[in-house]
Amino acid sequence: MSKKLNVGVIGLGRLGSLYARYFQGRISNASLVAVSDILENVAESFAKEHDVPKWYQHHEDLIADQEVDAVVIVTPTSLHKDVSIAAANAGKAIFCEKPLSISIEESLAIKAAVERTGIFYHLGFMRRFDKGYASAKNKIDDGQIGAPIVFKSSSRDPFRPSLEYLDPKHSGGLLTDCGIHDIDLARWLMGEVSSIYSIGGVLAYPEMKEIGDVDNAIATLTFESGALGVIDLSRSGIYGYDIRTEILGTKGTLQIGYLRETPVMVLTKDGVTHDTVPYFMERFGQSYVDQLQNFVDHLLQGKPPSITCDDGIAALRISLAATKSLHEKRPVSLAA
Amino acid sequence: MSKKLNVGVIGLGRLGSLYARYFQGRISNASLVAVSDILENVAESFAKEHDVPKWYQHHEDLIADQEVDAVVIVTPTSLHKDVSIAAANAGKAIFCEKPLSISIEESLAIKAAVERTGIFYHLGFMRRFDKGYASAKNKIDDGQIGAPIVFKSSSRDPFRPSLEYLDPKHSGGLLTDCGIHDIDLARWLMGEVSSIYSIGGVLAYPEMKEIGDVDNAIATLTFESGALGVIDLSRSGIYGYDIRTEILGTKGTLQIGYLRETPVMVLTKDGVTHDTVPYFMERFGQSYVDQLQNFVDHLLQGKPPSITCDDGIAALRISLAATKSLHEKRPVSLAA
Amino acid sequence: MSKKLNVGVIGLGRLGSLYARYFQGRISNASLVAVSDILENVAESFAKEHDVPKWYQHHEDLIADQEVDAVVIVTPTSLHKDVSIAAANAGKAIFCEKPLSISIEESLAIKAAVERTGIFYHLGFMRRFDKGYASAKNKIDDGQIGAPIVFKSSSRDPFRPSLEYLDPKHSGGLLTDCGIHDIDLARWLMGEVSSIYSIGGVLAYPEMKEIGDVDNAIATLTFESGALGVIDLSRSGIYGYDIRTEILGTKGTLQIGYLRETPVMVLTKDGVTHDTVPYFMERFGQSYVDQLQNFVDHLLQGKPPSITCDDGIAALRISLAATKSLHEKRPVSLAA
Amino acid sequence: MSKKLNVGVIGLGRLGSLYARYFQGRISNASLVAVSDILENVAESFAKEHDVPKWYQHHEDLIADQEVDAVVIVTPTSLHKDVSIAAANAGKAIFCEKPLSISIEESLAIKAAVERTGIFYHLGFMRRFDKGYASAKNKIDDGQIGAPIVFKSSSRDPFRPSLEYLDPKHSGGLLTDCGIHDIDLARWLMGEVSSIYSIGGVLAYPEMKEIGDVDNAIATLTFESGALGVIDLSRSGIYGYDIRTEILGTKGTLQIGYLRETPVMVLTKDGVTHDTVPYFMERFGQSYVDQLQNFVDHLLQGKPPSITCDDGIAALRISLAATKSLHEKRPVSLAA
Repeated sequence: MSKKLNVGVIGLGRLGSLYARYFQGRISNASLVAVSDILENVAESFAKEHDVPKWYQHHEDLIADQEVDAVVIVTPTSLHKDVSIAAANAGKAIFCEKPLSISIEESLAIKAAVERTGIFYHLGFMRRFDKGYASAKNKIDDGQIGAPIVFKSSSRDPFRPSLEYLDPKHSGGLLTDCGIHDIDLARWLMGEVSSIYSIGGVLAYPEMKEIGDVDNAIATLTFESGALGVIDLSRSGIYGYDIRTEILGTKGTLQIGYLRETPVMVLTKDGVTHDTVPYFMERFGQSYVDQLQNFVDHLLQGKPPSITCDDGIAALRISLAATKSLHEKRPVSLAA
Repeated sequence: MSKKLNVGVIGLGRLGSLYARYFQGRISNASLVAVSDILENVAESFAKEHDVPKWYQHHEDLIADQEVDAVVIVTPTSLHKDVSIAAANAGKAIFCEKPLSISIEESLAIKAAVERTGIFYHLGFMRRFDKGYASAKNKIDDGQIGAPIVFKSSSRDPFRPSLEYLDPKHSGGLLTDCGIHDIDLARWLMGEVSSIYSIGGVLAYPEMKEIGDVDNAIATLTFESGALGVIDLSRSGIYGYDIRTEILGTKGTLQIGYLRETPVMVLTKDGVTHDTVPYFMERFGQSYVDQLQNFVDHLLQGKPPSITCDDGIAALRISLAATKSLHEKRPVSLAA
Repeated sequence: MSKKLNVGVIGLGRLGSLYARYFQGRISNASLVAVSDILENVAESFAKEHDVPKWYQHHEDLIADQEVDAVVIVTPTSLHKDVSIAAANAGKAIFCEKPLSISIEESLAIKAAVERTGIFYHLGFMRRFDKGYASAKNKIDDGQIGAPIVFKSSSRDPFRPSLEYLDPKHSGGLLTDCGIHDIDLARWLMGEVSSIYSIGGVLAYPEMKEIGDVDNAIATLTFESGALGVIDLSRSGIYGYDIRTEILGTKGTLQIGYLRETPVMVLTKDGVTHDTVPYFMERFGQSYVDQLQNFVDHLLQGKPPSITCDDGIAALRISLAATKSLHEKRPVSLAA
Repeated sequence: MSKKLNVGVIGLGRLGSLYARYFQGRISNASLVAVSDILENVAESFAKEHDVPKWYQHHEDLIADQEVDAVVIVTPTSLHKDVSIAAANAGKAIFCEKPLSISIEESLAIKAAVERTGIFYHLGFMRRFDKGYASAKNKIDDGQIGAPIVFKSSSRDPFRPSLEYLDPKHSGGLLTDCGIHDIDLARWLMGEVSSIYSIGGVLAYPEMKEIGDVDNAIATLTFESGALGVIDLSRSGIYGYDIRTEILGTKGTLQIGYLRETPVMVLTKDGVTHDTVPYFMERFGQSYVDQLQNFVDHLLQGKPPSITCDDGIAALRISLAATKSLHEKRPVSLAA
């Protein structure tokens, strides 16, 4: 492999086109050499506007390109399996956006391909690269709060995505699509989960009933260590994008997240006011960059990937159990 | 009844002696005329030190005192029933500290006595008189956050009380003793609860196992409105007394509580530091005063009590269901 | 002197009547035995409403009362000299509200009387008893921020008092009436001041020109230690009562004051909002109580007063120099 | 001019090499085509490592390059005059880092060259592009705080730069080198300054006396509008990089700046702690990018530059008057 990593980005949607741009100036030791998108002309237009040397409509062609060292997969989740296995078979290193896939079966198929081919596979869970979460992880490992005993995490979107996007058939539903991040954090910071119980409701957008999903949910978790956890999720955090986590330990507690974008406050007779974080790029933009840099660095330096297939499978098992609990109105065990 | 309310305080423990002192200068239109405590000499010593005109060992004698218009009951919870019924039968107005009693049966007996005698009965839930909670209630009623759809509340003690105090036989256990406040807030701010599910564990103090209670717990609630809720409780909030509540509505969210006692911050190379709230009197001291004042004012002005027997019974039913859920590891319905 | 201090309050204006009430239940080891007010009937009405045993129209009569151990002087500043000297001559302990008097000459006369009679004299500067300022003082003395090198203090009233009150002939003008608190803090926390330079203007209330005072001012100070300081004052802090101080040291900085009254925040699409502190009693109410308690305790326990005549004279000299600088548009030295 | 701006960066020190990198991927519609640095090999090494097509040792050669549309001048301030005039004479658009130059005379020479040649000249004052300051400017213009009447600004470095850098012969001294940012903000947000008075001292680093400068200073300003201002500067903000500004208006106040880098807080028995901002790139990194983008956009779209020579000259006159006041211990007028 060259000293510099030649990257091809597969899927030029909102996040994919951003990742492609990141590789053009913000990620060290990597070059964007190709892009692909199944929609006609999308890859070509993007490449011409942004000076990308090569473009393809079909991911198979990009994967076949000998110049490409690593692929960054940002397609719809339902395509992750086919694209990942094809790339693994071609010996390409893989960065794949979360979630791993839409089912445990497909996830295990990806895992098998990664193990068989021995390629480098990094699953995208960018929150682990956020300064706040990374600092919390260090402080926990450092013993600053003693043994962690309670995990609390909140994820709120500032508005409802399209019903098409939200449809549980594609997204997996609120507890998977939105909750997978909190579940990954729960495992990363606290250890494995042994059971889960969820409640939820259509409380803000009546039209959610059409697609058979809830818009707000709360799930309690018990960890194998005996520790307790709770995750609350909302599609109606109308005041801003609000991601907060707390870990209570025997010696103290850690709180991650602050709900402020601009460093200015207005004080009038009506009180003190500051703005909130509009949406995810304003909160986590740098985390996406840092994660891609970590992918490049670990790959070039021969280090193992920071986040693996197994992390993706474990998180997915939990989010599916949470969804099952929601529907069956009873606690669900995760014991093997 | 005289223009000024003549008050007798029954029970001179930590909170009772404080209440007695409050009636000597901080509560308008009320005078402390008598105190009683079952422990020999306690009432006499207190009365002599603090210039209280009369003192008794037995609450029956204080209740029989014609000069006493209203009794403030701050005895152990297990005596609430007998003292309340005796006072009601004597026609005294009653302020009784929470919880109402230790069982639904005893609570219903109190309620029956109050209804039969027609006396004024105010149950002590002082958080409703905290400026933060009172302001939140007003803002919700005012529609500032639209329809409330998610309730989250946290109560953490900075250390473990004595095992004797904690024994569930007397205290009712964590979900009742500590959680009853959050449950009352849940009902007050969100409406009636339809089901509850609890998890908990002995995570900080192994000796809790001796008395058969947990030291940390999380309970999720569903409200009759369909709204969702979660309460997390801890005996090991080692960093300070931490009471926080959030109500997410369709138009915004409300956060109550800030964890700071002294208005000073130290900024050094190690970061920015401020202190936390040591314990409940530092956080809610004024709420206790405001609640007693509300009791006096409503009584003298012929207004109904702000918090009733029914509130106490409803909260107790929920905390008992929460405890049942904890033990039976399944959701518990509150349907009649 | 009895074990309990018998107190007489002279002057029943806004603060005086509050102090009198404080002595009826919130101050340990003290009793309110008499009040006086020069306005006809004021003392009598107050005493009857609040069960004060004795009342007088003339302070001379209260001072002559053998039962009175200590007087609390809360008259207009222009009367401080006469009342203080009379009380000192009668051997009464004195608590006198700031400022000491309206001129250096009168202040020196009070000091002479106090020294000649040897009575206990405590000058009221309640900010020293605020938890934030007291904590800052301790942290500085403890070396937590190293050597203090820059002092910054801000005092803002939420609205303009009456022109009658503001008239510099009575109030001493903005830099004395309002600034004397910050000046006392500067001396207490940093040491003696060597020179001062002030700028100011009529920027919010044109009618201030009628009485010949400014409504906003900034003064820079140099301390004898070489340290630097700045005080900014405003009558137009329209958003709330805002008192903030910062001390920068060689190892860190201390910030005192937070502009929040109620522990509740509203988060909507328009941002995060909380209220501000309405006025001085909401911010410093407890400091007034704590200062009176300190007066009683030190007097009964034979300790020296916490704040002396000399403190009052030193602060007044600086505020007068600041006013001179404002008018003469040049730095003014405080060298003897 | 091409649709895309071809940029040459002159000076590859800390900030210059960063600017060069920014033009390779973070600034739209611009390409980095050449770099120069007077130190042998610096430009060549940089160009080879970062794929810059051309490199020069002498700025004259870069300026003579026909492919270069615009130069970005990031040399030592003492060279600004010569480089700027040469670039203007060659018809290049100019982005020049603050301060304009080291004297009023040199500044006027630059201004004359800019006016004579009619080239596009943008002076770098990146704080105007910070989200907080930009938002404050909008809110003031929008009337949200009424008429601005008091300006307060603080700039604190977390440690002392080298004595060589600090030498007032090169840096202009604390009030110019550090204060010019606050002075520019003062003019931008409040209008022109009419007089200034400064105090300062060597309070943290005794070795500052060797170079004849202070390490802490406070300057009060009066504006032509009658408004008041104060700027405090420190080389010893040991706890972090701290840039804060407040503008008090007749209807409210605006506070810019918050001292937190990482969104995580630790709460233990010792209190609540969060980190601070380490240094200027963590606080203002995005502002540098946004300013360069603004330069490119205005130039390509035919809009006038956002910050002009005149802004640089005006700020420099004030910082020199502030320094004069410091030395002469008297207020200095800025009247023409």
